[in-house]
Amino acid sequence: MQRSMSLQSCALALGALLASSIVAAEGPSPAERAIEYRKAVYTVIGGNFGPVGAVLQGKAPYNAADVRVRAERVAFMAGLAAEAFPDISKTGDTKAKPEIWTDTAGFQKAMEALATSTTALVDLLKTDQTDSAAFKAAAGKVGESCKGCHDKFKAK
Amino acid sequence: MQRSMSLQSCALALGALLASSIVAAEGPSPAERAIEYRKAVYTVIGGNFGPVGAVLQGKAPYNAADVRVRAERVAFMAGLAAEAFPDISKTGDTKAKPEIWTDTAGFQKAMEALATSTTALVDLLKTDQTDSAAFKAAAGKVGESCKGCHDKFKAK
Repeated sequence: MQRSMSLQSCALALGALLASSIVAAEGPSPAERAIEYRKAVYTVIGGNFGPVGAVLQGKAPYNAADVRVRAERVAFMAGLAAEAFPDISKTGDTKAKPEIWTDTAGFQKAMEALATSTTALVDLLKTDQTDSAAFKAAAGKVGESCKGCHDKFKAK
Repeated sequence: MQRSMSLQSCALALGALLASSIVAAEGPSPAERAIEYRKAVYTVIGGNFGPVGAVLQGKAPYNAADVRVRAERVAFMAGLAAEAFPDISKTGDTKAKPEIWTDTAGFQKAMEALATSTTALVDLLKTDQTDSAAFKAAAGKVGESCKGCHDKFKAK
């Protein structure tokens, strides 16, 4: 009986071990998770800046409440984006260019442009909630900060 | 010359038309984009709550600054999650269950549990930045709100 229990315990332990090995082998690696996380951050940024860009391009009407909440989200997400390029995420299924990790000063400047431009847009919207020239300029600067970074640090 | 110009214009216009058709056919549909956006929102939530959960489970040391910023992010993202289930995103490559759109009161309650529990955690962390029983309880409630919603509204 004791021997049988022992065998059973052993089998269970082995099963658990194998299962965890399989999970480890099949699950995403820390690098893959970091890249997936980064893409998610940018998908959320794009999903919220997209409608602001549409207003900017005259493709959608200006909606003060919507523009404001989306601008706040993009500004908030800028902080997450800046942290989404850990060393482990250099290679893999990513369009992030190696220059991100070699030209760290240039990349930091590009990330700061995103933070500065999105904060400026949010600040403007606290007092000016109209489709004004100032709004167009501030939102345009956010778009430029996106494009500036992509041109330099994102593969086509 | 005029005829040649005309043909050229026609060819260019046709080329542009075909290119736009190809883009339209190959690009993601609004439903696919909505589902991708939703998944991204939850990836960002998971990527930030994960380390808090690790502290909760004793798998990582308590780091006050890290716990706080991650809790703030999860609380912020709760607002985006609540809006990430538009009708167009009911079907497709998603684990979102139909009950989300049929049991709207139940789903709203589950989303409110996420908002309430994450806000409570952020509020606690304003005064208590230690690995206290109160922290464990508040962070545990966030985990419960995740699990509660997934059990009911997310396919395995």
